[in-house]
Amino acid sequence: MIKAYAAQGPGEALQPFEYDPGALGDDEVEIRTEYCGICHSDLSMLDNAGGMTSYPFVPGHEIIGTVVAAGDNVSPSLVGQRVGVGWNAHSCMTCEWCVGGDHNLCASVQGVIIGRHGGFADRVRADAAWVFSIPDGLPAHVVGPLLCGGITVFNPLVQFDVKPTDRVGVIGIGGLGHMALKFMSAYGCEVTAFSSSADKEAEARSLGANHFVNSRDAGALNGVAGSLDFIVSTVNVPLDWMAYIQVLRPKGRLHMVGMVLEPIKLSIGPMMFGQKSLSATPTGSPATIRDMLDFAARHRIEPVVESFAFADVNAALEKLRNGKPRYRLVLKM
Amino acid sequence: MIKAYAAQGPGEALQPFEYDPGALGDDEVEIRTEYCGICHSDLSMLDNAGGMTSYPFVPGHEIIGTVVAAGDNVSPSLVGQRVGVGWNAHSCMTCEWCVGGDHNLCASVQGVIIGRHGGFADRVRADAAWVFSIPDGLPAHVVGPLLCGGITVFNPLVQFDVKPTDRVGVIGIGGLGHMALKFMSAYGCEVTAFSSSADKEAEARSLGANHFVNSRDAGALNGVAGSLDFIVSTVNVPLDWMAYIQVLRPKGRLHMVGMVLEPIKLSIGPMMFGQKSLSATPTGSPATIRDMLDFAARHRIEPVVESFAFADVNAALEKLRNGKPRYRLVLKM
Repeated sequence: MIKAYAAQGPGEALQPFEYDPGALGDDEVEIRTEYCGICHSDLSMLDNAGGMTSYPFVPGHEIIGTVVAAGDNVSPSLVGQRVGVGWNAHSCMTCEWCVGGDHNLCASVQGVIIGRHGGFADRVRADAAWVFSIPDGLPAHVVGPLLCGGITVFNPLVQFDVKPTDRVGVIGIGGLGHMALKFMSAYGCEVTAFSSSADKEAEARSLGANHFVNSRDAGALNGVAGSLDFIVSTVNVPLDWMAYIQVLRPKGRLHMVGMVLEPIKLSIGPMMFGQKSLSATPTGSPATIRDMLDFAARHRIEPVVESFAFADVNAALEKLRNGKPRYRLVLKM
Repeated sequence: MIKAYAAQGPGEALQPFEYDPGALGDDEVEIRTEYCGICHSDLSMLDNAGGMTSYPFVPGHEIIGTVVAAGDNVSPSLVGQRVGVGWNAHSCMTCEWCVGGDHNLCASVQGVIIGRHGGFADRVRADAAWVFSIPDGLPAHVVGPLLCGGITVFNPLVQFDVKPTDRVGVIGIGGLGHMALKFMSAYGCEVTAFSSSADKEAEARSLGANHFVNSRDAGALNGVAGSLDFIVSTVNVPLDWMAYIQVLRPKGRLHMVGMVLEPIKLSIGPMMFGQKSLSATPTGSPATIRDMLDFAARHRIEPVVESFAFADVNAALEKLRNGKPRYRLVLKM
């Protein structure tokens, strides 16, 4: 039996919960959990905000641990290794997206916490293709948040071929945004942080920003019009998106990784004259996650985390729900 | 004196008009007009729809003619050659966009009919960088529409690296759309035409479409969900844009070359899960226009045109305003 923490209904506190995972799949590994990050999407799923949650619900998709069992199709050498699992746990491996290396775009991709039980547990399972070795040089307790939040902000740099000579921006300096600043700075870019919290300027600069713009100040936004090649938005609230389109240089892209539920309204004129794009991405493919981990290790990119004991999981969830964690929360087994 | 046709105020009929062009600029050539296409943007400018028109206003930016004079910085060998001019007549040649080959994105780019007098005239001037030799194999009277409408639909294929293996679509089968079908078909793509005129199916297929979808039929749009890599919209009316986002495959792009004045409303969820983009472009750079002309000559891509005598310019403008020309109108000197 796997010992986990589960909610019995939408928004409920987590309680100890045991379940029988059945026989290990041929392509799966089983991992003994050491750490598990807490992400806003754990909260959304706990609340059934997207109508995709089944209860009892075990959150947790930023998992670090040790492989304790390997399925028949998996190399036994994996057993004993320290590994991580992010948002996804399974994809079909045979569709055009899987065979092309874009497993995250597979129509049958399965999230660790969607129709499965996640990492707030002593053990968890995932397909070997979605299980990642932890490079030397990265402390294990910070790697969990890289595997969901980190890849979410790293992936667009790869997908849209952002270059070290580009001038880039980050909207929102929080759980995702603080990692975006670190990755973009290590990429070699000139980095501008946009935040509605003027008191974050010093911290944004310490995280890698070359410039800081108070996004509540329309004059400050106008002052940087036409200056950036690429802007990633990490927020989930509606903003004056055309103001950010105007901040882009010709050929620029405004890219969304924060899930904004309100429709985005765009005026085509300014987009057309400047050849501008708007786009959005989910997390990344296995190959891009491997590159992200190698890059993070080489540049010592570590998310800023606050740790909680697994037994304090409800206090940690409450902090994420009501507070402003700086910047990611991690549970320790 | 140059003999032209000009409007004296917004929406007025054109009347004979003479003007003194002054001394020829060092970087300019003067062209004796043979043909000039008529484009919807001539009408918009005539009506001062964008507030950018100065009167007397001489329309015309799809110009074919013979060079009769060359400025001091221009090779004299150009004199006597048959050439064309499209939307733009001048750019600064020194900014980062000009020196990078993207002259069409220069902040000082000048349209032939914006603050200048256009091609509804016996002579017209443009900078040599914006003047293009007509390749052998293209009849001169069809090249004008390639230089504005043609490059407008060809340019995104280049900018966004559309591949011969891609499945692409065209929304609106008119002046721009019929050229898009021809270019995409010659590119080697699998091409779908979307039109609200069900009676255009046979013609769309003859222009290069492999498939035809009646865009008034929501069921037909749903039937092709997730099937295309790239869709170019040539219309200037608001549509259910999210329906077309849903027609895209993962990594797909909905691209606007028609100027829609109403805001585009996008839902981020479907864009994020499928890594989709929305973008827009103006016409193209000199280098891309040269490639377009070579490609058109090699593949015998000729817009379908109806010709008018220059003296019948007002009848031609009226036909464009009230009728449904199939597909482009050209004045002959």
